[in-house]
Amino acid sequence: MDPIVIVGGDAAGMSAASKFKRERPEREVVVFERGEYVSYAACGMPYYVKGAVDSLDDLVTVTPEAFVEERGIDLRLHHEVVELRPDKHEVVVEGPEGRLTQPYDQLLVATGAHAVVPPFEGMDLDGVFTMHSLPEADAVRDYLAFEEPETVGVVGGGYIGIEMAEAFREHDVEVHVFEMLPHVMAPFGETVAEAVEEELRRQGVHLHLDTAVERFVGDDSVTGIDVGGAVYDVELALVGVGVAPNTDLAASAGIELGETGAVATDEYGRTSRSGVFAAGDVAEARHAVTGEPDHVPLALTANRAGRAIGQTMAGDETPVGEIAGTAVVKAFDLTAARTGVIDEEQARGAGFDPVSVTITASSRAHYYPGAEELTITMLGDRVSGRVLGATMVGREGVAKRIDTVAVALHEGATAEELSYYDLAYAPPFSPVWDPVLTAAKVLDGKLG
Amino acid sequence: MDPIVIVGGDAAGMSAASKFKRERPEREVVVFERGEYVSYAACGMPYYVKGAVDSLDDLVTVTPEAFVEERGIDLRLHHEVVELRPDKHEVVVEGPEGRLTQPYDQLLVATGAHAVVPPFEGMDLDGVFTMHSLPEADAVRDYLAFEEPETVGVVGGGYIGIEMAEAFREHDVEVHVFEMLPHVMAPFGETVAEAVEEELRRQGVHLHLDTAVERFVGDDSVTGIDVGGAVYDVELALVGVGVAPNTDLAASAGIELGETGAVATDEYGRTSRSGVFAAGDVAEARHAVTGEPDHVPLALTANRAGRAIGQTMAGDETPVGEIAGTAVVKAFDLTAARTGVIDEEQARGAGFDPVSVTITASSRAHYYPGAEELTITMLGDRVSGRVLGATMVGREGVAKRIDTVAVALHEGATAEELSYYDLAYAPPFSPVWDPVLTAAKVLDGKLG
Repeated sequence: MDPIVIVGGDAAGMSAASKFKRERPEREVVVFERGEYVSYAACGMPYYVKGAVDSLDDLVTVTPEAFVEERGIDLRLHHEVVELRPDKHEVVVEGPEGRLTQPYDQLLVATGAHAVVPPFEGMDLDGVFTMHSLPEADAVRDYLAFEEPETVGVVGGGYIGIEMAEAFREHDVEVHVFEMLPHVMAPFGETVAEAVEEELRRQGVHLHLDTAVERFVGDDSVTGIDVGGAVYDVELALVGVGVAPNTDLAASAGIELGETGAVATDEYGRTSRSGVFAAGDVAEARHAVTGEPDHVPLALTANRAGRAIGQTMAGDETPVGEIAGTAVVKAFDLTAARTGVIDEEQARGAGFDPVSVTITASSRAHYYPGAEELTITMLGDRVSGRVLGATMVGREGVAKRIDTVAVALHEGATAEELSYYDLAYAPPFSPVWDPVLTAAKVLDGKLG
Repeated sequence: MDPIVIVGGDAAGMSAASKFKRERPEREVVVFERGEYVSYAACGMPYYVKGAVDSLDDLVTVTPEAFVEERGIDLRLHHEVVELRPDKHEVVVEGPEGRLTQPYDQLLVATGAHAVVPPFEGMDLDGVFTMHSLPEADAVRDYLAFEEPETVGVVGGGYIGIEMAEAFREHDVEVHVFEMLPHVMAPFGETVAEAVEEELRRQGVHLHLDTAVERFVGDDSVTGIDVGGAVYDVELALVGVGVAPNTDLAASAGIELGETGAVATDEYGRTSRSGVFAAGDVAEARHAVTGEPDHVPLALTANRAGRAIGQTMAGDETPVGEIAGTAVVKAFDLTAARTGVIDEEQARGAGFDPVSVTITASSRAHYYPGAEELTITMLGDRVSGRVLGATMVGREGVAKRIDTVAVALHEGATAEELSYYDLAYAPPFSPVWDPVLTAAKVLDGKLG
């Protein structure tokens, strides 16, 4: 029987390969990875640049050798799949040994995403970076160490931009963040954005909102960022304006893309072509709240879907799971988190009648040392009473509280139900009514 | 119309009074409280003794004056209800002005619980304390300050005993903890118990397991604890061997008690007598997992039930909510948490076929500074696949992670469902697969 073939050796691909091999050790699994790294923790890169993580090796979860030797996966680094042929059940691969055709029994497209490169003049100057691979993280850290920039520009106020601003500040450089929109971190909503902006300023970051970068200035190396009307001197520029799915390969093979631009998949990760799955940053996933396909390229989604598809390919049909758009970001001393649908317009678009409340509560018993204020915005549907989503921001106790709401979303809980759940209380960790309960209670009252 | 009458001015009573008054400001609410404190944070007392909380006033959530003046509640301190007469819709009260009879429209029995006083010889010696009221906390702190004991004995290794051991160690006294059972913190299961025991020893606490105290030794003040065969010198003894519901008043009035010994109630907190509700530490509540009445006297349960009953009494029928037995305890640098049914025998008794797994995972990305090991035990039902309960223990990131499982229990989620939920990930807060997901995944595999 032809092997399972996987295109792309990161979270989704390697999870699928590992799970399949565990279930069917007698079968062959071939993974083609065009780079030299597999299964690395991309989310750790800002902390490597910051210096909180010493070595890039720390970010590699499982080494290529371990995949080959311990898990029995036929992993081929520096092999780029250049064509998918779903009709013939084969792929065309270019590797160090030349071009080869590899037949497959089942195929997983896990080609990931790439950092969006805006069409600015000067993107190719020395000192201008995106952050989407370990070599890029290494290059940024080297540039910091050897060029010793005094001023850094970060283009984009999304979570990468915020995390990198923190990383740069740790090196005592002046940091400018440029965001086109009126607020940073758009997917987290205005309440979170304003708190994060205040924190950025408190940490000495120069924040330029509503400010579109037009080009990078410099001869060989970047020396400035031109925002039209003003040029800011910088000696390093980090561009973090989002990622886009690597769909070329799939699209060329006639595999259907969804409305989001990512590969359309069913609940088992199957694409429009028979025997071809897609998972990870390249693929859509179903949103637990709207029930619609969505594209939220995050690590857990890739890992979950990869694992489930490995199991399905092994003969045990397993849904890839729904996403809730749950995310958490450390922004200096602040933590910002979100889950579900938090934008009223988006909620209306999905057929809901949204009602929103914002509450502020204490992260611990008010009298307990270290208690910090926590702000929760929670969105509910007036018709069904369901919780649709929430954001949280605060200095303490935010990260894992959002999960409470995430589970409620997956289960379709109403605000009233959530407000009556038996959550943990002890003075060092929570007020008697956990802030999540308080938010649900207030939301339930307003949903009335 | 006769007023709403509430017996007992702590969490359940004052929550009910406040909610009712908010809904029906024109109606009269009379609360009889035999002591001088209302609505205080009993759970904060160990931290007052420890010194982490400066003043007892910090533990008072709302002052009596505020209840009267701002919320319009007719609160009568130093008034003890000595008889309930459900047939006549009246109660008999003894107060500073003598004995009076108070008619009611609806009645809430919120008489709370009391610290169990074991029948030891020497319980009445100076320096022997229980901890169930603010004056007791004050007395312990005073005794520490003025008598300067060098050695303290804590009788009972439940959460009060553990929290008080921590409080005493903060004052640099030698601490002995005596526990009758083979392990401390029985409701948290063996894995947690062993971790807590190790932590106690690491913090210099002398732990005596399987050790029944027989009597306290001393003339006027306590000087020793006799465990039969050995006497340990102590100059202060703290007895924390559990609490029991204050049911005398209800039982004398013919109100039905449940099998747990607490007042039996329906889903709205109604007792067996018409027009009489019960809530808080005196009452049973329905367990979300077993569906059976249970007695878990904790603060949130009291607050929730009081609030719901206030709403019901105001005309808007509101269930008091189910309990999941969710609890969290700080044990020095360790956090221990539980929710649901975690004892296999109890699970079998409730008709389940329990399967249990224990996993160890990192609280953060393994490479992120401050990551700590976290141990989760999760129980599931082989027949339905449902998650039945979980315990967690670790130095970091435990307290609010248990809530994720608590919500899953309330929603009757299966281990498979829970393992596919979209929980928050960022390196400073979690591995890609949150430990809860990992536990659910492993449990699902074993249930499979």
